[in-house]
Amino acid sequence: MSPPPGAVSTVAFLGLGRMGRPMATRLAGAGFAVRAWNRSSRELPAPPGGVLDVVATPAEAATGAEVIITMLPDLAEVEQVWGGPQGLAAGIAPGTVLVVMGTVSPVAVREWAPVAAAAGVRVVDAPVSGGDVGAADGTLSVMVGGADEDVERVRPVLEPMASRVRHLGPLGAGQLAKACNQVVVATTLAALAEAVTLARHGGLDVAELLDVLAGELAGSRALEVKREKLISGDYRPGGSAAFQHKDLGFALEAGRQNGTALPVTALVDQLFGSLRWTGHGDEDHSAVVRVVEGLSGDR
Amino acid sequence: MSPPPGAVSTVAFLGLGRMGRPMATRLAGAGFAVRAWNRSSRELPAPPGGVLDVVATPAEAATGAEVIITMLPDLAEVEQVWGGPQGLAAGIAPGTVLVVMGTVSPVAVREWAPVAAAAGVRVVDAPVSGGDVGAADGTLSVMVGGADEDVERVRPVLEPMASRVRHLGPLGAGQLAKACNQVVVATTLAALAEAVTLARHGGLDVAELLDVLAGELAGSRALEVKREKLISGDYRPGGSAAFQHKDLGFALEAGRQNGTALPVTALVDQLFGSLRWTGHGDEDHSAVVRVVEGLSGDR
Repeated sequence: MSPPPGAVSTVAFLGLGRMGRPMATRLAGAGFAVRAWNRSSRELPAPPGGVLDVVATPAEAATGAEVIITMLPDLAEVEQVWGGPQGLAAGIAPGTVLVVMGTVSPVAVREWAPVAAAAGVRVVDAPVSGGDVGAADGTLSVMVGGADEDVERVRPVLEPMASRVRHLGPLGAGQLAKACNQVVVATTLAALAEAVTLARHGGLDVAELLDVLAGELAGSRALEVKREKLISGDYRPGGSAAFQHKDLGFALEAGRQNGTALPVTALVDQLFGSLRWTGHGDEDHSAVVRVVEGLSGDR
Repeated sequence: MSPPPGAVSTVAFLGLGRMGRPMATRLAGAGFAVRAWNRSSRELPAPPGGVLDVVATPAEAATGAEVIITMLPDLAEVEQVWGGPQGLAAGIAPGTVLVVMGTVSPVAVREWAPVAAAAGVRVVDAPVSGGDVGAADGTLSVMVGGADEDVERVRPVLEPMASRVRHLGPLGAGQLAKACNQVVVATTLAALAEAVTLARHGGLDVAELLDVLAGELAGSRALEVKREKLISGDYRPGGSAAFQHKDLGFALEAGRQNGTALPVTALVDQLFGSLRWTGHGDEDHSAVVRVVEGLSGDR
């Protein structure tokens, strides 16, 4: 079954959270008719100037849409909106492309795709980086996996949300790249957490230490972005510590499947787990400093 | 005992290796009379235009020098050049400042300082980052620990070698900052090693993955500098893997002393140890990819 001919005009968008809301808004602003649905609330004001129709059920969102985007926290939530009398499957037309933009497991999205295929629906994975700022500005980086023709079909829908749309391989490739990204981000933050705590306990000024690190091979975008949080110890606003932990689990699952030992990632995953389980999952991921401090005793 | 008045004119420089050689050359080029000594060879040509007098013993190097710089791999080598009939102590004048510029343990340099103090010699620690390129260009970053008056005394000697000379605290502070730097560098390289191996095993193109990471929160100077090595798997030229492992030991020793749990550093130290013990200590530190590959089986 090939995708329907002609340009995409109607997009269903499921998941209007911190990221999904501005992304859907940009799509509407770019001229797409957006049929949006959200789990927790239907009472969302329409964006100024855009055509963003908030509907009551996933089935309604899917009706008439040529492309469906899910920006949901995990594949379990995609599965929840898929089935049942009000689910996507009840409204979706064969030939539709479903784009999983939330960060999910690269292994799980490949395993789930046959469910969608049974309804004639093709799946593309397209997780993003760039955070809520990138979502609002339309400067996300999109890592895409899927069949060539499906990716080309949805590319015009992804572009208004992103400064870069990269097709990296077959289904799951985008999620695998995102998992690799999260390995590096989380581990860099854990390294900074240990360095900052070691320095502070040794009497160094943390701001001065970070100046030293920033100018040399230790310099990173994470250091630059998290600098003030590392100095102040104030990890609000946030929300990414729990997501960071979730995403590290996907990297470990991918390594388990393709046979890659990830000893550092496994340990860093435990540190982020501890951060979450001690009640800090809603903070910024740089709050992993708390775990190192906790292991070292308060002082 | 206060430092002698007047500007420093004669500097002893011990250790003319990959870093020390260009550093001593820059000092000579800046107008200092440099009395240089090297463990393994005295047959070193003088730098063009500079006054660099290569002498036969540490005692000779120290004779007439107001500042003594050691650029030796560890404190054991400083101790070796200190004592005995041909050692520094035999030629050194009270009031001289000894600057330990090699990367050594912040704990050990503080413990050793009383030995020098017994001879009326003051100790400053001043490890560098910036590598052999920074050494040749005089753009090193120098992290300095020591008493204010001693650091001010040696600052004019350090400046020709560096773009930044930062006084971070009392003796040992420079080495502690360098240890923190090495924690972040080594851990970032380990994270990149795991990400690259996970990606390659999952069928992603490594160059494309690194492009994705470089533009986002995963971006780092290490990624930028090591990019070609990570893609090609060619880790020459190098020499820093063994040094990286040595330096991680100093961070762990500092944490043990000041009470900082460093779980990620401890694991990364093991990975770099393995790299060294399997015969790759002379390669670039980005070769830690080999350890992740080795744990995952060759393919």
